[in-house]
Amino acid sequence: MLKSAPMSRHLRFHRLALVGNPHDTRVSESMQTLAKHLLAGGRRVLTEEANPVDFGAAPVERLAPSALGAAADLIVAIGGDGTMLHAARLASGHGVPILGVNRGRLGFLADVGTAEMRERLDDVLAGRYVEDRRAMFRARLLCRDGAEKLGEALNDVVLQKWETGRMLDFETWIDDRYVNTHGGDGLVVATATGSTAYALSCGGPILHPGIDALVLVPICPHTLSDRPIVVSGSATVEVRLVERPNTRAQVTCDGLPLGELEPGDRLFITRAQTSVTLLHPADYDYYRILRSKLRWGRGDRVGPDT
Amino acid sequence: MLKSAPMSRHLRFHRLALVGNPHDTRVSESMQTLAKHLLAGGRRVLTEEANPVDFGAAPVERLAPSALGAAADLIVAIGGDGTMLHAARLASGHGVPILGVNRGRLGFLADVGTAEMRERLDDVLAGRYVEDRRAMFRARLLCRDGAEKLGEALNDVVLQKWETGRMLDFETWIDDRYVNTHGGDGLVVATATGSTAYALSCGGPILHPGIDALVLVPICPHTLSDRPIVVSGSATVEVRLVERPNTRAQVTCDGLPLGELEPGDRLFITRAQTSVTLLHPADYDYYRILRSKLRWGRGDRVGPDT
Amino acid sequence: MLKSAPMSRHLRFHRLALVGNPHDTRVSESMQTLAKHLLAGGRRVLTEEANPVDFGAAPVERLAPSALGAAADLIVAIGGDGTMLHAARLASGHGVPILGVNRGRLGFLADVGTAEMRERLDDVLAGRYVEDRRAMFRARLLCRDGAEKLGEALNDVVLQKWETGRMLDFETWIDDRYVNTHGGDGLVVATATGSTAYALSCGGPILHPGIDALVLVPICPHTLSDRPIVVSGSATVEVRLVERPNTRAQVTCDGLPLGELEPGDRLFITRAQTSVTLLHPADYDYYRILRSKLRWGRGDRVGPDT
Amino acid sequence: MLKSAPMSRHLRFHRLALVGNPHDTRVSESMQTLAKHLLAGGRRVLTEEANPVDFGAAPVERLAPSALGAAADLIVAIGGDGTMLHAARLASGHGVPILGVNRGRLGFLADVGTAEMRERLDDVLAGRYVEDRRAMFRARLLCRDGAEKLGEALNDVVLQKWETGRMLDFETWIDDRYVNTHGGDGLVVATATGSTAYALSCGGPILHPGIDALVLVPICPHTLSDRPIVVSGSATVEVRLVERPNTRAQVTCDGLPLGELEPGDRLFITRAQTSVTLLHPADYDYYRILRSKLRWGRGDRVGPDT
Repeated sequence: MLKSAPMSRHLRFHRLALVGNPHDTRVSESMQTLAKHLLAGGRRVLTEEANPVDFGAAPVERLAPSALGAAADLIVAIGGDGTMLHAARLASGHGVPILGVNRGRLGFLADVGTAEMRERLDDVLAGRYVEDRRAMFRARLLCRDGAEKLGEALNDVVLQKWETGRMLDFETWIDDRYVNTHGGDGLVVATATGSTAYALSCGGPILHPGIDALVLVPICPHTLSDRPIVVSGSATVEVRLVERPNTRAQVTCDGLPLGELEPGDRLFITRAQTSVTLLHPADYDYYRILRSKLRWGRGDRVGPDT
Repeated sequence: MLKSAPMSRHLRFHRLALVGNPHDTRVSESMQTLAKHLLAGGRRVLTEEANPVDFGAAPVERLAPSALGAAADLIVAIGGDGTMLHAARLASGHGVPILGVNRGRLGFLADVGTAEMRERLDDVLAGRYVEDRRAMFRARLLCRDGAEKLGEALNDVVLQKWETGRMLDFETWIDDRYVNTHGGDGLVVATATGSTAYALSCGGPILHPGIDALVLVPICPHTLSDRPIVVSGSATVEVRLVERPNTRAQVTCDGLPLGELEPGDRLFITRAQTSVTLLHPADYDYYRILRSKLRWGRGDRVGPDT
Repeated sequence: MLKSAPMSRHLRFHRLALVGNPHDTRVSESMQTLAKHLLAGGRRVLTEEANPVDFGAAPVERLAPSALGAAADLIVAIGGDGTMLHAARLASGHGVPILGVNRGRLGFLADVGTAEMRERLDDVLAGRYVEDRRAMFRARLLCRDGAEKLGEALNDVVLQKWETGRMLDFETWIDDRYVNTHGGDGLVVATATGSTAYALSCGGPILHPGIDALVLVPICPHTLSDRPIVVSGSATVEVRLVERPNTRAQVTCDGLPLGELEPGDRLFITRAQTSVTLLHPADYDYYRILRSKLRWGRGDRVGPDT
Repeated sequence: MLKSAPMSRHLRFHRLALVGNPHDTRVSESMQTLAKHLLAGGRRVLTEEANPVDFGAAPVERLAPSALGAAADLIVAIGGDGTMLHAARLASGHGVPILGVNRGRLGFLADVGTAEMRERLDDVLAGRYVEDRRAMFRARLLCRDGAEKLGEALNDVVLQKWETGRMLDFETWIDDRYVNTHGGDGLVVATATGSTAYALSCGGPILHPGIDALVLVPICPHTLSDRPIVVSGSATVEVRLVERPNTRAQVTCDGLPLGELEPGDRLFITRAQTSVTLLHPADYDYYRILRSKLRWGRGDRVGPDT
């Protein structure tokens, strides 16, 4: 999964796209700083056309989001892991890598701090980075009437109850084998990348990014033995809703609504053709980020300590 | 909490109300059977006015739901624990006890099976039962504009995200002391009675019904150390929503929507003035029901067994 | 549970006992500092006879541990919550209160930091503190042959497998009612005080110290629905071991071995006659300590944060 | 992982070894029944030399356990999953497959019931079965003094506190990268096969047997965010004990003690060269066994059911 930078690749990091939530002033200021820095270094700077950040006289090029992935050599995503998910959607299918700059605490995906972002970016431009390819997954919601909706996810595809206090009843199937009929608030189907996001809050395990796997994590399951299952990343996961009065169920991909799942519909989750490449500083250490994010270590223990 | 039947009380079990979901044929058939049985025994039989069950020539009296609690000496609730919650709302404030007949597997609250319901009901009418008083709790949603909404709950008051895939941010306060700012899908504030319902699915403990306590159970909390807290039943729990874009939060009492909680609103949960009295067969054993419902026992273990 | 200092009581804080692990230099230095400070203020200073700390010429009185509780007006326990448990054993039955000075991070019980210990102690001596009475529980191990062993616990009584990789089989009874037959690594019976110690690591809930309750938390239970149960503090909990080849089971009280539990023996846990009084600074806030110990709060969340 | 029986392989199922716990009369009776059945069918029957079961005049051949794996074409293990672990140790390195006959409820590994064992065994002898290859893992305990102990596991390698009520402090390393310093009762390193055994009781996820992975599951961790991590099956997991007074730590492989881990020692867990082949009936369905063992399904839910 992790590879050192290929010798020649960084030569083509000429057009850099800056993305992020411009309504966060820490983000907009970082964008201004980076744009200036990159232009001074002779690079071209792109951004989304609706981006309201004022770059002054700097020749920042504004493109439609759908055009950004094709036009950029590197996407610099400024914000938190949510911004990384947005960048992943822009990058999907174009092979353009993403570097994540975190505006606050380090994130699982955005692991460059604001204080050091210029140096780190220069390192990347000079070829000092590691590449980290992450699988994307595809959700296909096949409706009873034959219509279908497609979504992509880097983190997770989630089925959840919607505008109701009542639990859902749904069936899971893996590679056409019936697994279980679940009652509860829904199901998270997470990638290794997403295993440290919502799935973790629902009681799922951490999957090392080097694992080719998906994890199915039931949300607040009615049956207490209904536990997370880790299956191969090449599996096809299918979910069907069981008829139940007064319930509604929504499918989301990386937090964005894909559509409602109704009895008779079928939701399929499989690996996508595309993947996303993250760039990390050369001293990247997955476990160090894990320790930092989960506050592991001696000082954080609960209970009597003699 | 548990008391044997007072010597004289059962003498007044003259007017019996039958409630349940009439669209479940097992329920409607049980209603017909019980109505006939009770009328033959010289009792009066009441039911909700909208109840479509055909009692034939039998003189079943139909009343508005709001009048049923005052008119009945005993409510016989036929269905599952959900029907018991409905009966509790009818009984609230009238002191009328409830006997639960379960149409399927035994429930935590409805613990008389259909096969034995006539004998068990005769036992009750003859004074052979135990009384089990359960506290009700009150939810008071105080809006910024001064409006307020009131609800009652036997099981739980739940704050949950509503029509959104995004987590909520909310604060909890107990007896005016700040407890925590939580991120996650919401919060269950459950009574001992409700501790074996939704709260259990969310990771909460079982509270014995003899305990005067509430338990606050965070739903899929973002912070992994955000664990259930058990507080005194005389505590005032307060919940406030923290502003966050694109989130909506709903409050439900025993599964029924009370209203949305918005930033600036305050939700208070305190013990209600009223309580509910359940009647159980004389050999009632809380732990036996627990074992049955949670499938405890040797045969149910997972893992290697030598 | 929490009370302000009674007007007259502190007048009698004349003889102060210093206890702690003298092999921790932070502890021994704090002992020296406090002894000097207290003697300068005209108090008498006591310590355990085996305490190797060098107090120089200071007239520190050394007593047998068993005599310390009777001789002291206040025990100052320096260390972590483990030292507090030791102090609780010294104090048990003598009514002498305990003030906890934490040598590192604040503890649940030892909530005065080293930096401020002199000022806080002066506050206490001047009557500025709150009293916090915590129930002690008694473990009674009644052997088949009639012999019995007694222990006391402020935190928990634990049954655990001992020198074996094989799980235990044991039965629980509450107030002479059979509850369940458990398979697993053992059982924690924790007080509210102990609910934030080992019981929490085993998946138990937090019990507010104001709750009169015990919680039974199975350790790594074989049956996944074998969940923590909270029962009244006035309950009698009984545990019996089921015969099983190659298993051994040990009972500990606050971490100290009481004896092995064998098939035919009976272990009873009930409230003790005695209790322990902790003194806290006047601004004591249970939830603040909880937030600190469990690292609650915005900054500590896992997962994507947009 | 799952393969249909190769056309020719079953031709060599001529010498069948019967293993199991002979002190369980259900097991010894099954052994007698099967020995008779197999001998009548012209097969040779082997068993362990210490097996006290009386086979009468039947020519059952008794061999040293160490010779059984080499001598048999098929091991029939009668008992539960524990017996399967024993059979796996006999089979290890010899390539001889194992068929599991369960004397009670179906197990995860022993999935032929006693009632149907003759028919199922005939099916296998006739080539109607599926092969299921499961990875074995190797534990290597490298002591400070250079001595080393080796063990093999089909289910799990466990580090656990031993004859102590005090928690352990230990470090984990994966592929020479430092992961975490854990406090708690120990660590389960489980294979997919072992994920439904002890690891599940400790809060680990279910790993589908088709997954090439290990899961590290902390036992009652002190830090609540110390969650299970799933890593590649080709990873090297290393565990080191941190010095701590009054603690002892034992390493077990599939429940059998390997040796104590002391500060300065290093425990390595890696995939073994050998694997074990289980035979299943032709209609084998992993999820059906999972549903049965974990009691999944509608009828088993807790909580209100309307």
